[in-house]
Amino acid sequence: MFMVKEEKETSEGKHKREEREVSREEILKRILGLGNGLVKEIEAEENPHIDIPIRGSSNTVYDEKGKRIVLGDKVAKRAMFNVAHARKFMQTMLVASYVKKDLLENDLTATLRDLYYAKKHTIAGTKEDTIDEQKESDLAIVDLEVALDSFRERLHLRAEPKGRMAGELVVRDRVRDKIDLIDLSRMGSGGWAVPSIVEQIEFKDVGVEYVLVAEKNAIFDRLNEDGYWKRNKCLLMTTAGQAARGARRLLQRLSEELKLPCYCLTDADPYGFYIYSTMKYGSMALAHESERLGCPKLKFLGMSISDIEHYDLRSVTIKAKEVDIKRAQELLEYDWFKTKEWQRELKMFLEKKMKAEIQALSSKNLQYISKTYLPEKIKSQDFLP
Amino acid sequence: MFMVKEEKETSEGKHKREEREVSREEILKRILGLGNGLVKEIEAEENPHIDIPIRGSSNTVYDEKGKRIVLGDKVAKRAMFNVAHARKFMQTMLVASYVKKDLLENDLTATLRDLYYAKKHTIAGTKEDTIDEQKESDLAIVDLEVALDSFRERLHLRAEPKGRMAGELVVRDRVRDKIDLIDLSRMGSGGWAVPSIVEQIEFKDVGVEYVLVAEKNAIFDRLNEDGYWKRNKCLLMTTAGQAARGARRLLQRLSEELKLPCYCLTDADPYGFYIYSTMKYGSMALAHESERLGCPKLKFLGMSISDIEHYDLRSVTIKAKEVDIKRAQELLEYDWFKTKEWQRELKMFLEKKMKAEIQALSSKNLQYISKTYLPEKIKSQDFLP
Repeated sequence: MFMVKEEKETSEGKHKREEREVSREEILKRILGLGNGLVKEIEAEENPHIDIPIRGSSNTVYDEKGKRIVLGDKVAKRAMFNVAHARKFMQTMLVASYVKKDLLENDLTATLRDLYYAKKHTIAGTKEDTIDEQKESDLAIVDLEVALDSFRERLHLRAEPKGRMAGELVVRDRVRDKIDLIDLSRMGSGGWAVPSIVEQIEFKDVGVEYVLVAEKNAIFDRLNEDGYWKRNKCLLMTTAGQAARGARRLLQRLSEELKLPCYCLTDADPYGFYIYSTMKYGSMALAHESERLGCPKLKFLGMSISDIEHYDLRSVTIKAKEVDIKRAQELLEYDWFKTKEWQRELKMFLEKKMKAEIQALSSKNLQYISKTYLPEKIKSQDFLP
Repeated sequence: MFMVKEEKETSEGKHKREEREVSREEILKRILGLGNGLVKEIEAEENPHIDIPIRGSSNTVYDEKGKRIVLGDKVAKRAMFNVAHARKFMQTMLVASYVKKDLLENDLTATLRDLYYAKKHTIAGTKEDTIDEQKESDLAIVDLEVALDSFRERLHLRAEPKGRMAGELVVRDRVRDKIDLIDLSRMGSGGWAVPSIVEQIEFKDVGVEYVLVAEKNAIFDRLNEDGYWKRNKCLLMTTAGQAARGARRLLQRLSEELKLPCYCLTDADPYGFYIYSTMKYGSMALAHESERLGCPKLKFLGMSISDIEHYDLRSVTIKAKEVDIKRAQELLEYDWFKTKEWQRELKMFLEKKMKAEIQALSSKNLQYISKTYLPEKIKSQDFLP
């Protein structure tokens, strides 16, 4: 057990923090670069434009080697003097100006909704609003992200946070000038809430050997109560459903910076498999961010469809619904589910048309998951790729 | 700023903990009492029965003095030898046995779903299942709660947790034998995740003067980043939408045990008002738990419909939807909204048919909420009852 003490910033820590500060400077520089480019075009009496990588399925590819769903090379030009582009061009400029002047220069963060309210107004002398619906400014933000080859959190934009953590790890977090050392092994029954932006977080005393990320709050509570993470030197995390951006990014950093093996626990159904695949490979909707949000080394520990047989859970399965079957058929076709292990799992599901929740293990006894199922699984390295 | 140190249990702390332990013994005693009563009836060759207070609108009243929505006095008899009652009787017994033997005696907690999986099975020699759907065991749990004059968390049943906290308060939490002191002023950008069950929590070093509970994660993040809670000696909490049971109970305990004024922040719309009223008065669906979950001294700080005028937010309002109008009409009729202040607010909403999100304040500037709106509101004690 270690203690949390107030800490003077080390020179190494200071260097790392400065690296992160540089990244804020770097983004400011890129926004200025974008603006200067436009000014040059205007001075040369050209049509000002921005290059924006195309998103959507026509420009989304699976990078087999990097194990990531990424954007292809297709780029679209967005020009100011083009009736079809002018409104979006203006919105992208509004967003860029807010990010630069209101957020980065003041070291403040905001939500997408804040930005929408801040930049929505009626253009003087017209009846035209800059932004009608938040969907428009949201799209302009993503345009700016890809145009700057950056990501939302580096533009100081927050997403809805979700997820909790516990384990023998001390993290150093910074909220503007306030620095906290947080001992994740002393979080009681609640856990530490995973923030929206985790770029500023540094990992300090690391007393864990792997990360276990559970889809469900209930599993976090079960394993926390059973002292599972303490006994097994594991960092426990729940995403409380589909993982939020903060939780995904933190998982990636734990995997890549601390080289910790990461295991995922979901229900044995196609939605659980999909939640897993999003954490691991990224998603088509956010293909431009897979490099930053994906965790290619994540392994699927359970529950698998094979587990239903192996752990004799047939009596507590649930009949698959039409939507489960449709989703399984889709997963079968995705390149990132084309391994023989996943093809077998998905076909087994489609054959049996039965799913199981991870809490089905409670039909044996409450502590079966922490005393038998997980130790067995981890010991025999029984996971899916 | 205070430090978190490992702490020897004080005799006062030990006494309080023992009081809580007694409550576990007390519940065990009540379950045994229930069982012994049934055994006596069986021995006397009577029809074994349980008395269960009736729930639902026919037996729900507003306790004006206590400011709580509570159950009335109507009680139903549930008998074993009655075709209409037998199945529910059996299910209530199953639940009582699980709570006693699996949970309380082992000092373990479980979710409603765990209980369902544990007690669902086919009755030997029949094709009848003890429980078909979880809805049935959930209802049996509530029956047991009211029959024992207790509540779910004391039966060691967990609900889905939600919510985060930060502020100058140290809480002492216990997970079985593990005791943690958690300094809520050192939680970085994440905050401490509010647990499902908060009965075991003790409040230690209290450096706050009031509690501010925000409906939205985004407001928590904004105020946390602005150092609002530190500058204003406030304990900051978000319920992340409709408040979960753990957050409601904790709010009540902060209000009653620490005598802290509690203020609520939601959107200026009938759904926000409803979220507030549930935290304050309880709800009709959980009338049997209002005494434990309600926080009668909670005040509504904002955003009110009057604020839209006062803070000149007309340009960032949203047109009310049919569902908002319907909800406002319902609220108008509730006894707990019959104060003149709320009647005026609701009528103003119905007249203007406009609502506003609390983030609409960001149209002024990002820090307007923490630097102008909240300090003004609190200073002038401008809240609704």
